[in-house]
Amino acid sequence: MLKKVLLFTLGGAAVFTIGILIGHFGIKKNTSAPLPQWVHEVAQDVDENLVEKFIAQVDTTQIRENLQVLTRVPHMATTAGDEATVEYMLKRWQDKDTGLDAAWREDYRVYLSFPDKDKPNKVTVVRGSEVVASIREKEKAYYPEQDDPNVVQPYAAFGPAGHAKGKLVYANQGKVTDYEHLNNTLGSLNGTIAIVRYGGAGRADKGFNAAPFGVVGVLVYTDPYDINDGKMSDESETYPHSWYLPPSGVERGSYSTSFGDQLTPYLAAKNGTYRIEEKDITGVSPIPIQPIGFEDAMNLICELEGPEAPENWQGSFPCKYNFGGPGFKDTSRFKDCDVQLDVYNKAELRDSANVMGVIWGSVEPDRYVIYGNHRDSWVHGAVDPSSGTAVMLEITRILGQLVKTEKWRPRRTVIFGSWGAEEFGLIGSAEYAEEYISKLSQRTVAYINVDISVFANATLRASASPVAQHVIFAASKQVKIPGSDTVSVYDNWMQHSNRSSPTYGLIPNMGYLTGAGSDYAAFMHYLGISSMDIAYTYDRRKTRARIYPAYHTAYDTFDYVDKFIDPGFTSHQTVARTAGNVLLRLADSILLPFKSSDYAETLEQYLNVAVENFNTELTANGISMEPLKEAVKSFRSAARSLEETISSSDVVSNSPLKARRINDQLMLLDRAFLNPLAFPDKYGFRHVIWASRSSALATFPGLADAVMKAKTSGLKQDWAQAHKHLSIVTQAISGAAHTLAEAHAAL
Amino acid sequence: MLKKVLLFTLGGAAVFTIGILIGHFGIKKNTSAPLPQWVHEVAQDVDENLVEKFIAQVDTTQIRENLQVLTRVPHMATTAGDEATVEYMLKRWQDKDTGLDAAWREDYRVYLSFPDKDKPNKVTVVRGSEVVASIREKEKAYYPEQDDPNVVQPYAAFGPAGHAKGKLVYANQGKVTDYEHLNNTLGSLNGTIAIVRYGGAGRADKGFNAAPFGVVGVLVYTDPYDINDGKMSDESETYPHSWYLPPSGVERGSYSTSFGDQLTPYLAAKNGTYRIEEKDITGVSPIPIQPIGFEDAMNLICELEGPEAPENWQGSFPCKYNFGGPGFKDTSRFKDCDVQLDVYNKAELRDSANVMGVIWGSVEPDRYVIYGNHRDSWVHGAVDPSSGTAVMLEITRILGQLVKTEKWRPRRTVIFGSWGAEEFGLIGSAEYAEEYISKLSQRTVAYINVDISVFANATLRASASPVAQHVIFAASKQVKIPGSDTVSVYDNWMQHSNRSSPTYGLIPNMGYLTGAGSDYAAFMHYLGISSMDIAYTYDRRKTRARIYPAYHTAYDTFDYVDKFIDPGFTSHQTVARTAGNVLLRLADSILLPFKSSDYAETLEQYLNVAVENFNTELTANGISMEPLKEAVKSFRSAARSLEETISSSDVVSNSPLKARRINDQLMLLDRAFLNPLAFPDKYGFRHVIWASRSSALATFPGLADAVMKAKTSGLKQDWAQAHKHLSIVTQAISGAAHTLAEAHAAL
Repeated sequence: MLKKVLLFTLGGAAVFTIGILIGHFGIKKNTSAPLPQWVHEVAQDVDENLVEKFIAQVDTTQIRENLQVLTRVPHMATTAGDEATVEYMLKRWQDKDTGLDAAWREDYRVYLSFPDKDKPNKVTVVRGSEVVASIREKEKAYYPEQDDPNVVQPYAAFGPAGHAKGKLVYANQGKVTDYEHLNNTLGSLNGTIAIVRYGGAGRADKGFNAAPFGVVGVLVYTDPYDINDGKMSDESETYPHSWYLPPSGVERGSYSTSFGDQLTPYLAAKNGTYRIEEKDITGVSPIPIQPIGFEDAMNLICELEGPEAPENWQGSFPCKYNFGGPGFKDTSRFKDCDVQLDVYNKAELRDSANVMGVIWGSVEPDRYVIYGNHRDSWVHGAVDPSSGTAVMLEITRILGQLVKTEKWRPRRTVIFGSWGAEEFGLIGSAEYAEEYISKLSQRTVAYINVDISVFANATLRASASPVAQHVIFAASKQVKIPGSDTVSVYDNWMQHSNRSSPTYGLIPNMGYLTGAGSDYAAFMHYLGISSMDIAYTYDRRKTRARIYPAYHTAYDTFDYVDKFIDPGFTSHQTVARTAGNVLLRLADSILLPFKSSDYAETLEQYLNVAVENFNTELTANGISMEPLKEAVKSFRSAARSLEETISSSDVVSNSPLKARRINDQLMLLDRAFLNPLAFPDKYGFRHVIWASRSSALATFPGLADAVMKAKTSGLKQDWAQAHKHLSIVTQAISGAAHTLAEAHAAL
Repeated sequence: MLKKVLLFTLGGAAVFTIGILIGHFGIKKNTSAPLPQWVHEVAQDVDENLVEKFIAQVDTTQIRENLQVLTRVPHMATTAGDEATVEYMLKRWQDKDTGLDAAWREDYRVYLSFPDKDKPNKVTVVRGSEVVASIREKEKAYYPEQDDPNVVQPYAAFGPAGHAKGKLVYANQGKVTDYEHLNNTLGSLNGTIAIVRYGGAGRADKGFNAAPFGVVGVLVYTDPYDINDGKMSDESETYPHSWYLPPSGVERGSYSTSFGDQLTPYLAAKNGTYRIEEKDITGVSPIPIQPIGFEDAMNLICELEGPEAPENWQGSFPCKYNFGGPGFKDTSRFKDCDVQLDVYNKAELRDSANVMGVIWGSVEPDRYVIYGNHRDSWVHGAVDPSSGTAVMLEITRILGQLVKTEKWRPRRTVIFGSWGAEEFGLIGSAEYAEEYISKLSQRTVAYINVDISVFANATLRASASPVAQHVIFAASKQVKIPGSDTVSVYDNWMQHSNRSSPTYGLIPNMGYLTGAGSDYAAFMHYLGISSMDIAYTYDRRKTRARIYPAYHTAYDTFDYVDKFIDPGFTSHQTVARTAGNVLLRLADSILLPFKSSDYAETLEQYLNVAVENFNTELTANGISMEPLKEAVKSFRSAARSLEETISSSDVVSNSPLKARRINDQLMLLDRAFLNPLAFPDKYGFRHVIWASRSSALATFPGLADAVMKAKTSGLKQDWAQAHKHLSIVTQAISGAAHTLAEAHAAL
């Protein structure tokens, strides 16, 4: 019986076990169905191995080849050379092995300004009807590139056509104070031609500022002091012997103060779009203006009659810089001569293309990380912009391959933009922002701009919204500098440029995007999208060059980059690694790698500067800064609470809506600072923290400029405007704080 | 043996079964862990049983009691009576059994205008210094309510203080064309006082339009023709015998054309906020203006000298309405008399409170459904606004109870707003929108406004963004009209007011929110939040009353509602059920119950009207409507594609990010139509489809008004402005289409 019972029991146990097994594995549970695939997908965070793989794959040879193709011919906006780059970008981004999910072109009909090929602009020294001397019309050729018939004559784009003749004066940098000083000294500038050097004031401002003094024309040149560390001889010192600007090199550029297509403000420039009349364009020089090389400039300036210009107006020419009589010395061969400008610039409507490429996101296709650079140059544009485009193409090659081989797809959608007509005023990116304003505002996480990727070989330079400091630091810590296995881009950057942060101690000095220097402008200022501008740049201990010397000249060629800017292309590689790393983290992290507390620190710094400089006088005028202080405090506290929420949240195993909620707060933070009515006279500037400012103080721009004006005028209505800007920035900051506060806090 | 085997087998089978059961239920699977709780939560859709329960619980007695408490005393903005309602709202919303999750007050310091209690405004008929007659300063008391010392004297809020004296003229409705006609007939209106009736033009416009003709003061009255279906006698015909206005009743109101606090445009009116100077306020009458009752008006108008006014200027008085000599007939007791206005209105800064209440969302706490109404009245305000507040309190009582008993929590956050100072220009809601602009713009799904909930007993009336038509229809189909178990609110509505839709055939005629008639204005026009305005209203076959007759008078009391507007409170109940149902669907549906294709239909209608009326002349002026047609077409096609995505998506078993993506597209659709620069002269109007317009044509407002102006002037620059508005609306529509297109479509 015992045996039977045992047998029964054992048999029963076996059957029982089999029953358990069948029950466990054989029947689907109602209460716990297998986890759906999407539960895994939404919990996929940035893959550090993939990031490392990306870094390893960035290839100097590829970048060099990209640059070679991109710079074969001059590719000024809307020319045949530009069209060739459009086709090249499309070919690359539509490549079946290394291309993106999709790529296409989008054309805008935009207002551009060119010199007349048949009637070149002329600058002459004349005595009556006799031409005593002529300024050269093209740059000297050292290589065939400079002789390419498609090298555009140096000119001031959007400078008006016209003829001007008068006695020459030297007006330093063409700032208002420069003209004032000159006018006070000479008694009158009426009917004069001013020669000014680049720097100190915007291009257009040099003409803009001159006209009210009666100046009838302006020449602009680059002083060797500002660009060449004083070097002047092309026999040994300048290109082709070094990176320095040869004596005949001329910086071209847009001479307009605003960005975007000038005939269609706030509207995308399509065929049927309403256009303002040309006469209603603002922000361009009212008088003829023409840039020239420093050799020609020297020949003029060194002949000028006294009085002698002040010390800080002097440059590198081997002579005293005088104001001009007006006009030349009696001892000069130009005695009694006038300078004559004949400018034949013509504006016209042209079709300019953006080339767009995309990798669709897997989990959040409706969140965009945008990476862009312009494609158009003034001449061959090897540094500006092709060094950036070469880097972008290397990034897309690697990411495209990862997608095509099904090894990777970003969590969020990644959009690449190759913008057109940037050199004429950031036009392609601005029109894109205008056309897609709603979609981009609703969905864009960040914009990464890499225009000139390598100014020089020394260190990373980044400017960005403070919320992005964290991800730029993180990426730059992971990448090593050229030629080192140990020194990170971050550490090297800190050595070159640093600041003491109340939060972190010594950190690299990241800049802010306060102007409209490249295509980030429409994203940062108009759309309030957290933007970044990344490049490699100078060792400031070694040069005081205002910018790389061949900037906007016919010497900015592949040869120039290959020999002087980045032989071996390792700085390009470093930028590609860093910017690509930033891109991957933004695209793939479950939680956006943004830190609102870094924004708080910036606001506190801005507040300190504002209080220190304005509080006494504001108070004296019955205006209290307390609401602003309160707003900054509330922002800090909201940022802290958001970061507590983040650090206490298990976003991986929680509903993806939790991470999305936090990400929306971070994504939309910069949007909260937009006020479309704050700066009615500054096209496209809506961000009340980063809008351009005239004041030199690093603080809230609207407030700073309004206080500066009120202090000067002493007028009651100007103090009222200061109060208004104080309220505008206060409301923006406290409004932004509301968006960061826990959703469960009081609304 | 058989028995034993059988026993063994049976025993084995039992054990086997138990094993299966244990295996199935008792052991956690590794490969398929139990679904996390949040997977269930995010898949919870609107609960129809709960909706039915809500509808059943809406209680007429509760609403009646709410109204009784709310209307005990006059509660004009910022008075003691208003403060009592603030406390009552807080008490109700903080109640431990029926309250909300949280409730609080938010105060703004706003600019209001009041008569002087010690020096009442006076209107007199004078002959030299002799006062021949005086207009009554307060309304006749039929009940103690009218004798309450806190009944404010009838006045024109924001009308300037001042003294004006002149011969009387009758100027119909005070439209520009009325004054023109009168001026042309009489030769001059210089130095006259005009008497005008309500209707046809906005309150402020009646003074605004008069001043350029030299008119020095304006009297405004309500003609019995317009409000009382001609009835005039308080002995039998008017209140207290019916809902009609008694002869001494006076409509108070704000005489300002813009909304929001007038000293702080675009800034929340806090203590330290920048304020413009009073002299810089625009949109208010430049000359004294005073509303009076129709009995007094009759005594003046019937004494006026000829010529006789046109037929459509005549009203219900038993006399011919003449223009005035100017002045009175020689046969009149007022012969040679002037009319004199002495207005003592004073503007001052006062603290006005919004009361806010919230039920936090479970799954998407960062998505808001806002439901609001103003709290302030002119006098007792039983209909306006307390009928709406009584309904809101009944909705919050039921929802609060559901939350407190843990039976329900909405998917999204529900916010209730009891706005202050609406009567002075929608101030509380506008300041709220200004202060929280970023947060509200980013997160708000919809705004539901129920101001006056019951104008009359006949039918539902709803105005809304077209995207919300669907949910209003759905809710109104589920609710029955008072006194019927079978007729739905929807069917009854269709009987009273319908239109033929190309998509649906005959449907109720939902209106649009084209003006700033109540607190939806800041949400719809300034923030671009899809808004709704819901009420019960008249049978237009039975009355031509411009509005319910006691509007803004001392007769708008609980007694008036209880006896004449809605005895039994069943229309209140019906509105509560319908609006509450809309609220629940917006708060709880996984997919927002919005239809973008309904927006497409509206845009197509607007386009048709525009093409029909403007195309010929636009074309003649070289302006093509093709881009607008293309934009509307692209919107339709994008809406279709979104709806295909929706109908092919299994959002319940998919990642909640899929539904969120679609919901974001729907939530942000109205936002895409905002253009903050489109209407620089119209405060707060940023929505290019719904902004107020002067043109009578139901089409795009900026385009319509610009074309109207250009047609009148024939000026080239006016046609350019028409072109500009065409481009603005084209870009807005195509921009909105971009946001609806599949994320995987070209950007």
